[in-house]
Amino acid sequence: GERVVTYSVRFWMIFVLASTAAVAAYLMIYRAVVPDASHVVPLFFAFDNGAPPAADVALDGPIMAPGHAYALSLVLEMPESPANCAAGNFMVELAVHAGHSNRTLASVRRPGILRFRSGLVHSLWTVAFLPLLLLGRAEERQAVRVPLIELFDNPRKEPAARARVSLSKPSLQLYSAQLHVDAVFRGLSYYMHTHRLATALVFISAIVVVQFVLIALLQFRGRAAAPALGRDG
Amino acid sequence: GERVVTYSVRFWMIFVLASTAAVAAYLMIYRAVVPDASHVVPLFFAFDNGAPPAADVALDGPIMAPGHAYALSLVLEMPESPANCAAGNFMVELAVHAGHSNRTLASVRRPGILRFRSGLVHSLWTVAFLPLLLLGRAEERQAVRVPLIELFDNPRKEPAARARVSLSKPSLQLYSAQLHVDAVFRGLSYYMHTHRLATALVFISAIVVVQFVLIALLQFRGRAAAPALGRDG
Amino acid sequence: GERVVTYSVRFWMIFVLASTAAVAAYLMIYRAVVPDASHVVPLFFAFDNGAPPAADVALDGPIMAPGHAYALSLVLEMPESPANCAAGNFMVELAVHAGHSNRTLASVRRPGILRFRSGLVHSLWTVAFLPLLLLGRAEERQAVRVPLIELFDNPRKEPAARARVSLSKPSLQLYSAQLHVDAVFRGLSYYMHTHRLATALVFISAIVVVQFVLIALLQFRGRAAAPALGRDG
Repeated sequence: GERVVTYSVRFWMIFVLASTAAVAAYLMIYRAVVPDASHVVPLFFAFDNGAPPAADVALDGPIMAPGHAYALSLVLEMPESPANCAAGNFMVELAVHAGHSNRTLASVRRPGILRFRSGLVHSLWTVAFLPLLLLGRAEERQAVRVPLIELFDNPRKEPAARARVSLSKPSLQLYSAQLHVDAVFRGLSYYMHTHRLATALVFISAIVVVQFVLIALLQFRGRAAAPALGRDG
Repeated sequence: GERVVTYSVRFWMIFVLASTAAVAAYLMIYRAVVPDASHVVPLFFAFDNGAPPAADVALDGPIMAPGHAYALSLVLEMPESPANCAAGNFMVELAVHAGHSNRTLASVRRPGILRFRSGLVHSLWTVAFLPLLLLGRAEERQAVRVPLIELFDNPRKEPAARARVSLSKPSLQLYSAQLHVDAVFRGLSYYMHTHRLATALVFISAIVVVQFVLIALLQFRGRAAAPALGRDG
Repeated sequence: GERVVTYSVRFWMIFVLASTAAVAAYLMIYRAVVPDASHVVPLFFAFDNGAPPAADVALDGPIMAPGHAYALSLVLEMPESPANCAAGNFMVELAVHAGHSNRTLASVRRPGILRFRSGLVHSLWTVAFLPLLLLGRAEERQAVRVPLIELFDNPRKEPAARARVSLSKPSLQLYSAQLHVDAVFRGLSYYMHTHRLATALVFISAIVVVQFVLIALLQFRGRAAAPALGRDG
């Protein structure tokens, strides 16, 4: 009776300890395997007379982890000013550089453009949204999204450290600009990110089982090696 | 009685095995003979001051399989801006190049143009669709489709590896552009693609019949060659 | 009794055979004498800065059979844009060339023009057809038909191989263009094409009659030459 109770208590203590250790282990594995889903990095363009506006940005630290894949896109918040509307298609140039060697890891040129609205549509929109416009809740601006790289494999050796973004037309006007860095989940990290609970349960229970098997083996070995030392097990 | 049962069981086992093998064989034949029906490849035009906008695109891999025929067309998503409407007819130039030799496999020039709407029709359309326009569900844009090649025979030796698309007028404005690559099904692949079920049934049953004939021949040979060895058939 | 039956059976067998042969012969004669009624060949005009738009088109193969006569006309699908309306009369130039010698077989210049509609008529038309215009079922465009050659005798030696169509005004705007090649039926081919059933019946029955006459002659000759060999029919 008492013997059975102690066995049961011992089992539950080991189970709780093993589970806690498994959860902790899985969290560490998760942190190592799954990168941060997305980062939004503000860009501050330098507008110099006649030169194409350009912005430099640091990509190290948690923004782009080595060994992971990322998609990069630029979001420009632009006023619907005549200068911007007259610019038509403009080019966005992105160059990603490594840290020490300053090697160019990726270089891409993609076109962007403001969505067109005729004078009539703009006038009717102004009338329809006048209250919001007067209160400052609506504005004559657009967020222009330019996808730059669909898949950038950040190398483990010499990972990306910084990027330079430039616009082809000096006449462009910006309210603000952001570089969106979105992790591309593939293989194990894909399952660990999208089926978070399922993979966690599978991994944690697997680790618990392995721990129990190891404990059982150790106990069996201990009894087999020292049968004469008495039953203190 | 028992003998008949074993014969029947054996027949069904062979039938199931032969059918499975036939299905697997047909799937392999299908994959080899019938190309992917269509691919839509995004194009990113480079707009440089005064130069005709041009885009390079890779066509290897599954997009254009060697030995198959394809139709190529360009779809341009264009704003109905004054610049685009004033451009009138513009030319689209396509050049398809092979991989190593860089040989030009096809070169074509075709005209494109935005559909015309008078000021009156545009105004009435704006009023009629105002709710959708204000909500951003309708837009003053057109998808201009320019058929480029009706039949391009991708050679087995030196297949197409990349293409260059360029527009004759630098003043054109684009939201986005896509190259549509549609497989042209001819001969066997035509039947295998359009009458999918019928050809599959014909092929699979033919393969099963051939397998049964072969088995019957082998068994008959075995019995004819070794009549004295006893009846283990 | 029996004799009559066998004669009758033999007659019907010969009749069926002769009729089948006559139908086959007539189909071959029809194919040789009557050309395809009409072909519509798409034209892709090249719009180069300031140069007159021009399109080259192949006319060999089944489009223009050697030894037949054809009428050629151009159909231009044009937007009712200000540029097109301001162009007034424009000239269409067609040159038909032979294959190897590149000799010009025909050369013609004909005028074309859009149908005029005043602002008032256009406005009222827009209002009347507004639902169709908004749904995209009606459009502000015209199909301008320019007859180019009423009778072109395609020579048996050196038949037409290609044509070049050009427009005099570079400012013209086109949605699409088609060259209509219509066979001109004269003499026998006229009757065979327009009174298809009547000529077919006349020809086929004539061929059947000729066959019967030939068979009768051969049988009569056979009996007259070998009266002593016995009556084997």
